[in-house]
Amino acid sequence: MALGVAGAGDRRGRSVVSKAVALLDAFAVDEPELSLNELAGRTGLPLSTTYRLASELVSWGGLERVPGGGYRVGLRLLEVGALAPRSAGLHEIVVPFMQDLFVATGENVHLAVLEGGEALYVERVTGLRSIPVKSRRWGRMPLHATGVGKVLLAYADPEFTDRVIAAGLARFTPYTIVAPGHLRRNLAEVRRTGVAFAHEEMTVGRVSVAAPLFDAGDRAVAAMSIVVPTTVDPQRLAPALRTAALCASRRLRERAFHADPKRPAGEPRPAPPGTG
Amino acid sequence: MALGVAGAGDRRGRSVVSKAVALLDAFAVDEPELSLNELAGRTGLPLSTTYRLASELVSWGGLERVPGGGYRVGLRLLEVGALAPRSAGLHEIVVPFMQDLFVATGENVHLAVLEGGEALYVERVTGLRSIPVKSRRWGRMPLHATGVGKVLLAYADPEFTDRVIAAGLARFTPYTIVAPGHLRRNLAEVRRTGVAFAHEEMTVGRVSVAAPLFDAGDRAVAAMSIVVPTTVDPQRLAPALRTAALCASRRLRERAFHADPKRPAGEPRPAPPGTG
Repeated sequence: MALGVAGAGDRRGRSVVSKAVALLDAFAVDEPELSLNELAGRTGLPLSTTYRLASELVSWGGLERVPGGGYRVGLRLLEVGALAPRSAGLHEIVVPFMQDLFVATGENVHLAVLEGGEALYVERVTGLRSIPVKSRRWGRMPLHATGVGKVLLAYADPEFTDRVIAAGLARFTPYTIVAPGHLRRNLAEVRRTGVAFAHEEMTVGRVSVAAPLFDAGDRAVAAMSIVVPTTVDPQRLAPALRTAALCASRRLRERAFHADPKRPAGEPRPAPPGTG
Repeated sequence: MALGVAGAGDRRGRSVVSKAVALLDAFAVDEPELSLNELAGRTGLPLSTTYRLASELVSWGGLERVPGGGYRVGLRLLEVGALAPRSAGLHEIVVPFMQDLFVATGENVHLAVLEGGEALYVERVTGLRSIPVKSRRWGRMPLHATGVGKVLLAYADPEFTDRVIAAGLARFTPYTIVAPGHLRRNLAEVRRTGVAFAHEEMTVGRVSVAAPLFDAGDRAVAAMSIVVPTTVDPQRLAPALRTAALCASRRLRERAFHADPKRPAGEPRPAPPGTG
């Protein structure tokens, strides 16, 4: 969901930094390796520029060469990215509570934050016997059709919610809530009860239960969820989930964890150059 | 451990890309936020250049502004970094086996890969009742003093092991193995038994047990470990760990997972510009 942010599509006059990050942005889950030609094609850069910038990124570690002569994303991005407070802080403080919930339930436990108008999954605890789910770690999912998304939306600025609704509510299953009035009533219920349910709204056969995590400034910084098959009654899981979320929130307060970048978390991230 | 790779220390004639990544590299675990002045100081760049490059990284999402006017690392690096095959593939395939081991033992379970002459921790499963450990997710630890490091070293190219030993074996505790002959005998034992132990060699009071994970090309791509207090007999945990590592290896083979960048995994990563 781009929320009306235009891509910096102009191929001319692009800065070197925007070209370099366009190379990184060219990779995708289903395209983890790209040849030099593909990289040039995806970014609209001349071959020589692509080669020079890719080589610089390889020497930094942001890209790696692969035997066939292509490139793939390197581990250096994760090493540096791990320093992001919205990742490192939440990881250290919240994951042990997610583990407890996983041990108690054996089900997929997720943690998501609001980023660029979507729910960004920052942590996932899953076992050999957990059911397969669509969400990936550091993958994005829509706000209105997921449990974590509805929690993040319920506690976001009202103007942000208005913009998400105005941008249109996409339908993913016959059960996705696409009527603005229906979604607003649903979000009011989430705020009232402190728990969100998504009943096959993103994936048929899957139900999620989610609850908010509050930081030291009482701001909902993240949402924790359990995803189960429809054969499980989600109401049964809600108390354990709420307890885990409350305990994690208390720990966030104790550790004075704040998530308040100058750019509000709800603000859409500008589309990276070269991704349209 | 730099292994003799010189930093690109020259402040003059640096490319724009090397300056931009120097800004990212300026952050550290104990310095997650930096002011513009600090960023300029850490990188040796003029204030105006620092501001311009930082602004470009903010608009990409690699940096975020913080209320006081400073900067911190943004989540975009993790989103792109998550596409690194050596992270995404191992995460998807191996973490469920780590979860199982955690549920069975309640102890810290780690996964590390060889990167830049050190053990880079790419996954960590830890609970509320697990003992505190030194390693962080995406943190680095020395090869010769940790269980995962000894596994990675035992299965690395012999020339690589020679270079690590030649670079000098730092002492962390009275029990760290610093004599080359002693370490070589220890590594031969790891290859013979398929399990490595580190008895208070990195941290007094902590013991680790580690085993290798093999990819579809029968290459040791990662090491899995459990870290426990010295009050626990690590021999007791070895069978469960070996089983988890063998099952994860079998799954890696089934999924045809290969970790073979052109630059061998054991090759030291060139030091990023600006970090000395």
